[in-house]
Amino acid sequence: MKNISILGVTGSIGTQTLDVLRNSNEEFNLIGISANKSYKKVIEIIEEFSPKYVAMMDHSSYLQVKSYCEENNKNIIVLSGIEGLNRISTLEEIEMVVTSVVGMIGLIPTINAIRAKKHIALANKETLVVAGELVMNEAKENGVKILPVDSEHCAIFQSLQGNKHNEVNKVILTASGGPFRGKERDELKEITPEQALKHPKWDMGKKISIDSSTLVNKGLEVIEAHFLFGVDYDDIQVVIHPQSIIHSMVEYIDGSVIAQLGSTDMRLPIQYALNYPRRGNSVAEKLDFYSLGSLTFEKPDMDTFQCLRLAYEAGKAGGTMPAVFNGANEIAVELFLDKKIKYLQIEMIIKEAMNSFEHIINPTLEEIIDIDKRTREYVLNKYNK
Amino acid sequence: MKNISILGVTGSIGTQTLDVLRNSNEEFNLIGISANKSYKKVIEIIEEFSPKYVAMMDHSSYLQVKSYCEENNKNIIVLSGIEGLNRISTLEEIEMVVTSVVGMIGLIPTINAIRAKKHIALANKETLVVAGELVMNEAKENGVKILPVDSEHCAIFQSLQGNKHNEVNKVILTASGGPFRGKERDELKEITPEQALKHPKWDMGKKISIDSSTLVNKGLEVIEAHFLFGVDYDDIQVVIHPQSIIHSMVEYIDGSVIAQLGSTDMRLPIQYALNYPRRGNSVAEKLDFYSLGSLTFEKPDMDTFQCLRLAYEAGKAGGTMPAVFNGANEIAVELFLDKKIKYLQIEMIIKEAMNSFEHIINPTLEEIIDIDKRTREYVLNKYNK
Repeated sequence: MKNISILGVTGSIGTQTLDVLRNSNEEFNLIGISANKSYKKVIEIIEEFSPKYVAMMDHSSYLQVKSYCEENNKNIIVLSGIEGLNRISTLEEIEMVVTSVVGMIGLIPTINAIRAKKHIALANKETLVVAGELVMNEAKENGVKILPVDSEHCAIFQSLQGNKHNEVNKVILTASGGPFRGKERDELKEITPEQALKHPKWDMGKKISIDSSTLVNKGLEVIEAHFLFGVDYDDIQVVIHPQSIIHSMVEYIDGSVIAQLGSTDMRLPIQYALNYPRRGNSVAEKLDFYSLGSLTFEKPDMDTFQCLRLAYEAGKAGGTMPAVFNGANEIAVELFLDKKIKYLQIEMIIKEAMNSFEHIINPTLEEIIDIDKRTREYVLNKYNK
Repeated sequence: MKNISILGVTGSIGTQTLDVLRNSNEEFNLIGISANKSYKKVIEIIEEFSPKYVAMMDHSSYLQVKSYCEENNKNIIVLSGIEGLNRISTLEEIEMVVTSVVGMIGLIPTINAIRAKKHIALANKETLVVAGELVMNEAKENGVKILPVDSEHCAIFQSLQGNKHNEVNKVILTASGGPFRGKERDELKEITPEQALKHPKWDMGKKISIDSSTLVNKGLEVIEAHFLFGVDYDDIQVVIHPQSIIHSMVEYIDGSVIAQLGSTDMRLPIQYALNYPRRGNSVAEKLDFYSLGSLTFEKPDMDTFQCLRLAYEAGKAGGTMPAVFNGANEIAVELFLDKKIKYLQIEMIIKEAMNSFEHIINPTLEEIIDIDKRTREYVLNKYNK
């Protein structure tokens, strides 16, 4: 029996994590959950999973949940705000935290969880992108496992099992290529949010769908892979694989490539992270090679999709640069979804931000948080018109 | 430094094993070698690798090598016949034997090597096919590793690393499909040895090329996989994958599939077996996913290529049945190469032999050798006309 907390329980990953728990044979105890505003969903989760602790970021949603619990005699501790989130991440009775909140908000609770020696099922990319070195050092010091919850890093993680780190030649990160694969740069100028939100293979949240279309998502994954697996940027190759069947690969010094394949179902990496080092019984559909069709591979077009190149540059620069890349992108995506900027301005804004801010090597957590805040303000002030 | 012997050093696998040694950084010492008749090649190998022991099966070739060594003051012990082969396999100073002799002749030396606690790099399929249970039991008792030297089983072996046996759902054995993939049964009637010897992907010996065209080779691999990895026949799936890039796969209970990919170069599995649990530096060409093209998958056509179905039947029946399957096939292939029988008679002869012999469950080694001998005689007597 593994006791866990889920941060961001009502989001896409949170909901699918619940589905994994639902399909497991009582191997897991859901002790703590957090959400932002979706108190109705939270109440449903309370009824189904009976957690002991609930944290709501939004104050009025907190009040809703609190009064519901009181009226229905639920023996649940209801918490609010970032303090609540931190409490949920560090509960004495849990051994693992699923961090599926979106954005920078996940960073501090994740670090607190690591310091409290909780293993991390990490679905919050920003944590490693902006503070990869700090987070991995904390994990090492505290003997904590960081188990990636996305299909690519989970595939790499699986492809590394039973192998030696010094025999890795390179990591091959596959990418669907997003909805605009094969398009010319000119065709991207007038892309609307509606077009960008239609991902060919994965059903995901809005932010990650846009990131997937610009290849920012793959760029964030490159940076994440660098920290998670300790590989140089020159040894991380992105390969466009539109069918998304091979979820990523590792090439070893002898030329052998180990790959993990599976259906395009996020519950697969979630389940792997929850059960590690064991595997759970299948929740996802299995692959049928007799009806799979062709698997194809292409080189990513970094001239058309320049965000991927910028991500490599930000990663190689290191220090605070990935935080600037990430912060600028987050605000640019919001502005694009609000139709305040055009599609190609996302890339332009990231580039501008990367050129505008000082570059701090070996930043403290405070410096990272500060530069992230200033990046966001800079982009908002200039483009939110 | 690993001291090794190679049985069948002048054959296809033997020659490629030497190439792996040539490209390694002096990690290996070639102590013993054996060959049948190719004494000229053996003399070249003596000059290059300076083994301490040489065994020639053929007596006049033995005399040739012996007089060469005497004339040239080589401090080499030259042996002959099956006794020589057994000596080479059990030398005190070696820790591993590469068994790349072709056919039943490899069985006894392999068992002797196991009993002498030598790890086995196994390229001799027949060993496991005819006596899988005996061989695996001996290996277990003697704490000996059986490292498969063919691309499929090496891929499965690699895909199992770091995973738990009880979490394997099935083994997926890929097959190129051979030169006659897609043909109708009628088109196979007049196939000549010349046509059957042209394999689209792998450059191999004659016997294995014919086996590959009839899918007997894949059938033997199914039986081998059963013994090597302890999986039921119903959990071994053959998938036709004409590009031979994915060398085989393992599906786990959670639906994850782990695969090993690589170029079609036998030196890759040879090198893996020699270096295990380490990996050597690449001798084979690396995969370039940007220029790889499509990977495709099909269901094998067991109505046209009935040998594969017969192999499953022989495997499931167990006992001496795989030995009958293998023995009948070996002679039928010889007869086909000599143009004594037609292509489809290979399959007919296997079927006939499987129906003609008594079926012994839990046979002794002597019973296996006896039924193998009788199967061969039966086929020869009836069809060598």
